[in-house]
Amino acid sequence: MTVDSNSLPLEVRRGLYETIFRRRDMREFRPDSIPDEVLARVLVAAHHAASVGFTQPWDFIIVRDLERRREVKRVFEEERLRNAAQFTGKRREKFLSLKLEGIIESPLNLIVTCEPERFGPGVLGKTAIEEVEIYSTCLAVENLWLAARAEGLGVGWVSIVRNEALRSIFGIPKSIVPVAYLCIGYVESFPSRPVLEKAGWAERLSPRKLLHFDSWNRGPSDQDALSRIVEDPEIWRDIFPASEGK
Amino acid sequence: MTVDSNSLPLEVRRGLYETIFRRRDMREFRPDSIPDEVLARVLVAAHHAASVGFTQPWDFIIVRDLERRREVKRVFEEERLRNAAQFTGKRREKFLSLKLEGIIESPLNLIVTCEPERFGPGVLGKTAIEEVEIYSTCLAVENLWLAARAEGLGVGWVSIVRNEALRSIFGIPKSIVPVAYLCIGYVESFPSRPVLEKAGWAERLSPRKLLHFDSWNRGPSDQDALSRIVEDPEIWRDIFPASEGK
Repeated sequence: MTVDSNSLPLEVRRGLYETIFRRRDMREFRPDSIPDEVLARVLVAAHHAASVGFTQPWDFIIVRDLERRREVKRVFEEERLRNAAQFTGKRREKFLSLKLEGIIESPLNLIVTCEPERFGPGVLGKTAIEEVEIYSTCLAVENLWLAARAEGLGVGWVSIVRNEALRSIFGIPKSIVPVAYLCIGYVESFPSRPVLEKAGWAERLSPRKLLHFDSWNRGPSDQDALSRIVEDPEIWRDIFPASEGK
Repeated sequence: MTVDSNSLPLEVRRGLYETIFRRRDMREFRPDSIPDEVLARVLVAAHHAASVGFTQPWDFIIVRDLERRREVKRVFEEERLRNAAQFTGKRREKFLSLKLEGIIESPLNLIVTCEPERFGPGVLGKTAIEEVEIYSTCLAVENLWLAARAEGLGVGWVSIVRNEALRSIFGIPKSIVPVAYLCIGYVESFPSRPVLEKAGWAERLSPRKLLHFDSWNRGPSDQDALSRIVEDPEIWRDIFPASEGK
C-alpha cells in the first residue's frame, strides 16, 4: 500500500484503471442512437483534457448527416487501397480482410479539430515545438475515448482520411486542423483484447522493454526495481484484489 | 438514466469522470520519491492507450539524474525568455511571474518518445497523415496523466524544451521523436481549478461554443438538444448525485 493523501479513493482509482484497460478501438456498431445526455458528458470529458497554455484549442463537429458520411466513406475506400499497397502477400490479404471503420453504420461520426491560432500567435508553452496545440487535441481525444468506453460507447479512429477531403466535405477553414475522425456508437460487446491483437495483426509489447533510464542507451535491467516489477501482477493487487493483474 | 448493457458500473464511470475533472497541470512538487509500484502502474496505464495499427510507438525515459536535469533546466530558461518575448506589457509581466516547471525539485522527470518506424514503413491506419504515431503517443500521455492524478501524483508538461537539446542530453537517436517532457511528483494539494485559470491567464471556454453540426458553419443552436444540455448540470445527476455538476 503506497497511498498519498492526495491520491483519489480506491474505488476512483479502480474505476479509472478499469476503464483504461477495457477501452478498445471499435469498428462494429449497433445502430441505436446515442442519448444527448450521454454524448454531452463524453464531450465535456474531452473538454477537460490538458492543453498547452490552457488554450483548449479543440472543436467538435457532430456528424449525423448520412450524405456527408457517404462522401467520407468514398474517400476512405480510396485511402484504404493506398494503405493496402504498403503490404504484400499474406499481410496484405489480412489487411484487406479487416474491417477498419464504421462510418455509415455507426449512429454518429465526430471530428475533433484543432485551432492553433485560437488565442493569437503568442502561446504560453509554445516556442520550439510547432504542434503543441495538436498534441493537446489528442489528449482530449483520449479523454473522450475513455468516457465513451465507460458509457458503453465504442469509438473507432479512422486515421487515413485526407484532411483536404474533410475540409471540403465539412467546410472546415484552412486555419483549422482536423485531427481525429471518429465513429461512435453502442456495440454488441467489447472484446477482452484489442481488435488488431485478436486478429493476429500485432501483439502487445512488453512494457519493460520500453523503459530507459536517464539515457536512451540505458535500457531495462534487473538492477532497477521498476524494470523488475512493471510486468508483475502484484502491483495491481491493491487496486484489483480479486484479479491477477493486467 | 441512459445506461447501455456494455456501460461500466456507476462507480467505475464516476471514478473516471472524477479523475478527469480533478487532473491538473502542476508545477510545484514535494520532494518525496515515488514508489516503483505506483510509477509502474502509471506507466502500464500509459501503455494501454490507443495506437494507430496497434503500433504502441512510445518509449519512456525515466530521468532521475540531477546533472542531466540541470542541463534541461538551462535549455528551458532560454526558451522561457523566447516565450516571454511573444507577449507585451502586463501580459508579459504575468507570464514572467508564473512558475512553469518543476524540473529540478520534482523527484522524477519522464520523457515520452515516439518511434514512428517501429514496425517498418507500412502502418495500418497511416497514409495521408504523417503524424499518426505522434498522435498515439499523446493519447498515452493523457492516460499517464490521469493515472498519476488518481495516484495523487502531479504531472506538468514542459512543452518549450527543444527536441534537439533533449536528443543531445539523453542520447536519443534521430529516428525517435521526444513528444512530452514531464515533471512528476507528489504535491501539497491539487487546486480545484486549472493553475492558469486561477492565475487569471486564461478562462475555461464554454463547451457549447465548441460544437458544430454536420458542417463547420452550423454552430450551436437551441434547436439542437445537445447544444441546450451540454452545460446543464443535470447531465451529471446520475453520476454525481450529491453534486451540482461540473
